[in-house]
Amino acid sequence: MATKHASSGELIDVRPLGAPLDDSQSTTLLRDAQLKIMRFVMPAGKELPDHAVDGPITMQCLEGVIEVTAHSSSKTMRAGDLMYLASNVPHSLRATKDASVLVTIVVERPAS
Amino acid sequence: MATKHASSGELIDVRPLGAPLDDSQSTTLLRDAQLKIMRFVMPAGKELPDHAVDGPITMQCLEGVIEVTAHSSSKTMRAGDLMYLASNVPHSLRATKDASVLVTIVVERPAS
Repeated sequence: MATKHASSGELIDVRPLGAPLDDSQSTTLLRDAQLKIMRFVMPAGKELPDHAVDGPITMQCLEGVIEVTAHSSSKTMRAGDLMYLASNVPHSLRATKDASVLVTIVVERPAS
Repeated sequence: MATKHASSGELIDVRPLGAPLDDSQSTTLLRDAQLKIMRFVMPAGKELPDHAVDGPITMQCLEGVIEVTAHSSSKTMRAGDLMYLASNVPHSLRATKDASVLVTIVVERPAS
């Protein structure tokens, strides 16, 4: 993951990278106290096994095709599809074509 | 704004709507305790005057062209450009071509 993070007001390019994709291109685009944004690059065949995140997330497919399994259901995501998952919902991902995915994580803080 | 919100695991279509755009098409796509996601539709010439949001936000241009002014700087955003703004940063938007913008707001909660 690259370490250069965007600051407030800066433009971040989330256009498709185009083939060939290589998972070393995965990047953390932004990190603040409440928000973390990454682009995951998933070459075809790449899997992220079942995991859960402590905070609500969104995943937006930027290019390619991924299968996302959550809530006992599998969905096919292509460019322009976005999925929200509530905090701590287990999910897995599998790229069926070279893909990149914009992942936004809300960092959980204990309620006051 | 439409009232049908996505639930966890549901696919949300954030593809370009295509012309003609009409600001009555603006929609709240998702609302949970910590996250709110909207698509703002801004016909060319439409302005959102200076305002600030209590929580960090991202704006992603899905189609068209908008000018965003924040931190004493104006930036032109086209499809594939994303901008993060820290909590409470005043900003204004103006569409220079029919545009739609995916806005993600992290709902602030007092730190514990």
